[in-house]
Amino acid sequence: KALKIQRKWLARWVVMMLIGVGTAAVATVIEVSIELCAKYKFYTLTELTKMCKEDELCLIIPLVVWMLINSVLVCLGCLLVTKLEPQAAGSGIPQIKCYLNGVKIPGLLTLKALLAKVFGVILSVSGGLVCGKEGPMIHSGAIVAAGVSQGRSRVFNKDFRIFEYLRSDTERRDFVSGGAAAGVAAAFGAPVGGVLFSLEEGASFWNQLLTWRIVFASMTATFVVNVVLSAVHGHPADMSNPGLISFGKFTDIRYRVIEIPIFLLMGALGGLLGAGFCSINAKLILFRKKNIRTTTAKVLEAVIVAALSAVSSFVCMYVISDCAKNEVQGEHRSGRLKFTCPDGEHNMLASIFFKTPEEALVDMLHDKTDAYSVRSLIVFVPLYLLLMCWTCGLSVSTGFFIPSLLIGAAWGRLVGVFIHRYVPWVHTDQSLGIYALVGAASQLGGTVRMTISLTVMLIECTGDVTFGLPVVMVLIVAKWVGDLFNGGLYELQIQMMGIPLLPWEPPEMSYDITAQNVMNKPVAVFRTTETVDRIVQVMESFPHSGFPVVEHYQPGNIDSSTETFGRCKGLILKSQLLLLLKRKCFKPRCGSANLNNSNSDSIRLEDFRDAYPKHMGLLEVDLTEDERKCILDVRPYMNPSPYTVTQNTSLPRMFRLFRGLGLRHLIVVNDRNEVVGMVTRKDLAKYKLKSRGVNVELQKMHIHWE
Amino acid sequence: KALKIQRKWLARWVVMMLIGVGTAAVATVIEVSIELCAKYKFYTLTELTKMCKEDELCLIIPLVVWMLINSVLVCLGCLLVTKLEPQAAGSGIPQIKCYLNGVKIPGLLTLKALLAKVFGVILSVSGGLVCGKEGPMIHSGAIVAAGVSQGRSRVFNKDFRIFEYLRSDTERRDFVSGGAAAGVAAAFGAPVGGVLFSLEEGASFWNQLLTWRIVFASMTATFVVNVVLSAVHGHPADMSNPGLISFGKFTDIRYRVIEIPIFLLMGALGGLLGAGFCSINAKLILFRKKNIRTTTAKVLEAVIVAALSAVSSFVCMYVISDCAKNEVQGEHRSGRLKFTCPDGEHNMLASIFFKTPEEALVDMLHDKTDAYSVRSLIVFVPLYLLLMCWTCGLSVSTGFFIPSLLIGAAWGRLVGVFIHRYVPWVHTDQSLGIYALVGAASQLGGTVRMTISLTVMLIECTGDVTFGLPVVMVLIVAKWVGDLFNGGLYELQIQMMGIPLLPWEPPEMSYDITAQNVMNKPVAVFRTTETVDRIVQVMESFPHSGFPVVEHYQPGNIDSSTETFGRCKGLILKSQLLLLLKRKCFKPRCGSANLNNSNSDSIRLEDFRDAYPKHMGLLEVDLTEDERKCILDVRPYMNPSPYTVTQNTSLPRMFRLFRGLGLRHLIVVNDRNEVVGMVTRKDLAKYKLKSRGVNVELQKMHIHWE
Repeated sequence: KALKIQRKWLARWVVMMLIGVGTAAVATVIEVSIELCAKYKFYTLTELTKMCKEDELCLIIPLVVWMLINSVLVCLGCLLVTKLEPQAAGSGIPQIKCYLNGVKIPGLLTLKALLAKVFGVILSVSGGLVCGKEGPMIHSGAIVAAGVSQGRSRVFNKDFRIFEYLRSDTERRDFVSGGAAAGVAAAFGAPVGGVLFSLEEGASFWNQLLTWRIVFASMTATFVVNVVLSAVHGHPADMSNPGLISFGKFTDIRYRVIEIPIFLLMGALGGLLGAGFCSINAKLILFRKKNIRTTTAKVLEAVIVAALSAVSSFVCMYVISDCAKNEVQGEHRSGRLKFTCPDGEHNMLASIFFKTPEEALVDMLHDKTDAYSVRSLIVFVPLYLLLMCWTCGLSVSTGFFIPSLLIGAAWGRLVGVFIHRYVPWVHTDQSLGIYALVGAASQLGGTVRMTISLTVMLIECTGDVTFGLPVVMVLIVAKWVGDLFNGGLYELQIQMMGIPLLPWEPPEMSYDITAQNVMNKPVAVFRTTETVDRIVQVMESFPHSGFPVVEHYQPGNIDSSTETFGRCKGLILKSQLLLLLKRKCFKPRCGSANLNNSNSDSIRLEDFRDAYPKHMGLLEVDLTEDERKCILDVRPYMNPSPYTVTQNTSLPRMFRLFRGLGLRHLIVVNDRNEVVGMVTRKDLAKYKLKSRGVNVELQKMHIHWE
Repeated sequence: KALKIQRKWLARWVVMMLIGVGTAAVATVIEVSIELCAKYKFYTLTELTKMCKEDELCLIIPLVVWMLINSVLVCLGCLLVTKLEPQAAGSGIPQIKCYLNGVKIPGLLTLKALLAKVFGVILSVSGGLVCGKEGPMIHSGAIVAAGVSQGRSRVFNKDFRIFEYLRSDTERRDFVSGGAAAGVAAAFGAPVGGVLFSLEEGASFWNQLLTWRIVFASMTATFVVNVVLSAVHGHPADMSNPGLISFGKFTDIRYRVIEIPIFLLMGALGGLLGAGFCSINAKLILFRKKNIRTTTAKVLEAVIVAALSAVSSFVCMYVISDCAKNEVQGEHRSGRLKFTCPDGEHNMLASIFFKTPEEALVDMLHDKTDAYSVRSLIVFVPLYLLLMCWTCGLSVSTGFFIPSLLIGAAWGRLVGVFIHRYVPWVHTDQSLGIYALVGAASQLGGTVRMTISLTVMLIECTGDVTFGLPVVMVLIVAKWVGDLFNGGLYELQIQMMGIPLLPWEPPEMSYDITAQNVMNKPVAVFRTTETVDRIVQVMESFPHSGFPVVEHYQPGNIDSSTETFGRCKGLILKSQLLLLLKRKCFKPRCGSANLNNSNSDSIRLEDFRDAYPKHMGLLEVDLTEDERKCILDVRPYMNPSPYTVTQNTSLPRMFRLFRGLGLRHLIVVNDRNEVVGMVTRKDLAKYKLKSRGVNVELQKMHIHWE
């Protein structure tokens, strides 16, 4: 027994290491593929534009080629996602958040989803969509974690017979937290930020031991990505590639106390822009739900966006045509395009559009004050913002961290240029990096409204702690301002999915709402020994995932309103009942003789574990007419001490039970311990505080749960 | 009502800001006072040694002066702590941890404790004890938070009538978390690290909204300290003093993959040393509990340690007498002492001993490879370690973060010198900073066993994220190795205090222990209407802080073992009962006529709030013989839906209830909802997993709770 505990302990650490390595491998594949694609694509385009020396009409050729490349790649990516696994669309972060919160989403953590996600993001980033590859890394990490921790694959029908004792809901959820953290760590080179992300978004219960393991997974991921990418780039021992994105080294950027109000204003602006983005996005999701339903329509929309991205940026580059002198500068000098500029100069907008968003962001943060003309930036920001709005929510695998940062950096730069030109004594430093950074932080913060994890991620990306203070302040202001209008992007997306996610705290003014007001009744209950027939009937008519087990109960008169449903003895899960029925663990005392007696005791804890996490339907259970008359004794299998509350328990108290313990159902009993109702997450999530002008009132929302 | 919610919301933010400012003010006072004292003291000593040009015997004068200064200062500090508030001894971190975990410690958060803490730490650091000022900052921040959030002072008997609605256990605990975080932020200039510290050590329930406020408090503290200290040091707009300690700027330190195993070994060494320190410390605490009980003895011990610190370092400096050439170097060049060295040189050990530990640490991290001779370091490490062991646990206000870091940095440097000398191809960089840093991290990590918050704190102190990876790895290894031997320092100290702190997870193998096994019975219960006489009697004989309220119960035959104690109707707290008795809220139907009828309804929620947080004793309640015969109806005041569990609930399930919801007592009922027992924190904290060789078994510890 002691050995088993030690093996379990060791297995947990080993699995976390494997998760780190696996996530890092996925990250490397994505990074290298996108790098190659982007290189080849932009090389082709550059060559094609170079061929058009004087003849401007000839520029139509690179435009068409660009459109074609983008459309084909995005079309493939969209087909992959829609056909293989629709859950792989978008960043997957809201879904992972739901999963960590205790809501199961079918198909989310499968091998198919991983394939669709990874190759989908490669195709959509290479296809020139306004998106990044960082968000999907979080989902990928989570899938890797879910797969590795089970030690088997259902698709390949292969069971390695390792980590068997880790097959349970709680363990799996812990590993998925680790995977999400490793994903962030691999994407941003931010191990601590990753841990915080997974705690902030997922954990409802801070557990130090688990935190250690999560730290280990994210560290492993960062380390492996660092070593492998450094080796790929030709300097193996140097460890200079901590993640998929690095903001580059900021050297000696200073800011003065007097600039802090400016930063705060920028935070407010970011909050406004973010809130706008979120509400447009919510409207788009609704629109798509109604009008874009078929695969053809989805692919068509994606292809249109891809083509439009190419055309609009090309037209802008041509129309604006701001040129800057080429100077011999250090790094990050790819994507420089002469275009219609005179010799020795390059097009400013092309140096944003002719590279991946990650490269553009690094340049935006580090380039000299006059690297981009005001005109170019003013055109770029709204155009890119619109394209991002449209892209986010397409049926392709996309992230929007980097585009948000890029837009923020661009308008941050604009603010910086303005300050530099009209009140030069405020900002004495030559570089505009700090303005770009603050703008980037406020744009992203205004959109996702994450707090401390985003701060740490940004700090880890810049590699410098001195920006911590302005970044935190800006993020807080952005969140405040954004929250005046709506919830963060993930919140809205989760709301749109119709998932009952509980907020952090019970709504105010809910103290006079009691269990009696929110509970569901009549309750579907089972007696300790119940006929198979009734079990099947009840499960067919009630979609619940758990049922109270009672004594002294006569079924039949279920609709009498004052009735109680027998004395509470325990709780049994639907999944357990299904397995019991499938294995035919009936009492031998039922009439039919062809039942094997030994069956009744043959089911064990291991069997329940082995069935995890696949969910059976009722259809998979085959029962004869005779078997339906048998009797099932649920007492050996039920949970004998479920959490219960009395009728007059207040809503906040139930809320804390659900939130703090991650419950899914709660039995409501009267003071004689008789079942009177059931409360689920949905019943609590309904209550929201709404402000109407100066008045605040508690509303019961009527959401249509799917 | 809506207005009230908004005012509450605003008040919470305002209080957090005030906490930040207040903590920063305390930090500034401590910093500036210590700076002045240290400057004056070391100036005097330097002048005295300079006077002894040739005559070595004359060096006895500075030695005696040093001893005297130290002894007097430490004597004052010790008197302050023992006389004013003994809870101010040590760092206060274990106590704060207990408080945040739900255990109340009288005197911990009072104005007296703050005064003793602040002036105590100034005196002990100036008095040359081997201690730092950072640990006490956390306690100070917590006290500031507790005071500010109540908006009144009992000592000055002044009630500002603001923040009244924040007077509750939960709110106060939230603010104390914020104060602790602000303390860390002010001490280390690490706002994010502070937040993580308070979450890691205190929170059992991650709450995003609270986290935001804590971030705000720590940020405010960092910001104010930064501005004020920068102004004090003469460059107000520069913001270069983020905290009380900064590790200085590391420029371009590199490490190679091949060095990582070395770092890991250093982590293991740190774990060993830390475990040793912890176990010596635990033994010392026991020894002191037995033998050093009077104020005189405590002061005497402190004075001896102070004098000894001076003598031993002086003797070392004299005996070792390693000299190094003075070079013209940039910063941090205070504390350079010629001593017995030839002209143009200085004593190496003196440049550690002749300054505050903070300054010594910064030098240790940044000085050139040959700044300290191997001999000096080899003498310094064990001497300082011994002194630290002895100092930690004295009745003075001390922290041990900085001394731990200093010792670690010293032996880390030793390792670095060794590598540099014998395998120079491993470490190609000239600077030994990374070795000093890794050593410092592993020493501290091996002692306190904190995880992610310590990482972030160290990263924020160095201002460079590239050290994150080695630091995290080293901290994990140090924790693993240390945990093989014993718990972390705080854990041990809390154990020694006899406080039932629950670990993070229920012990393994405890699934077959049920509520029936751990519960206390007989239970002291009250009927819904109870005679005052019985209430007083029960409260006199049972020290519990909460009592179940029941129906259908006949007191008297309390010791019958199979008995139940009536049907559970609610729970009433001792503090509520005391207030009810004091206000004489009895039922008018009791015999005496001199009772004012209106009393029975005159008590309200506000009255309970107003009484908070002072705890009355039973002695304060004056009852006449007649009043004792009255009847008290507790129903309007009790909690009508307390958390209950059934007899066969497993220990891990109860554990999660206590841990996740911060409970103090849990009523055990049978399946007819009749009270059969009570479970408290202590009952759960008793079970610990013990490993004996290869066997692991669950033990019920017999701790004598005080």
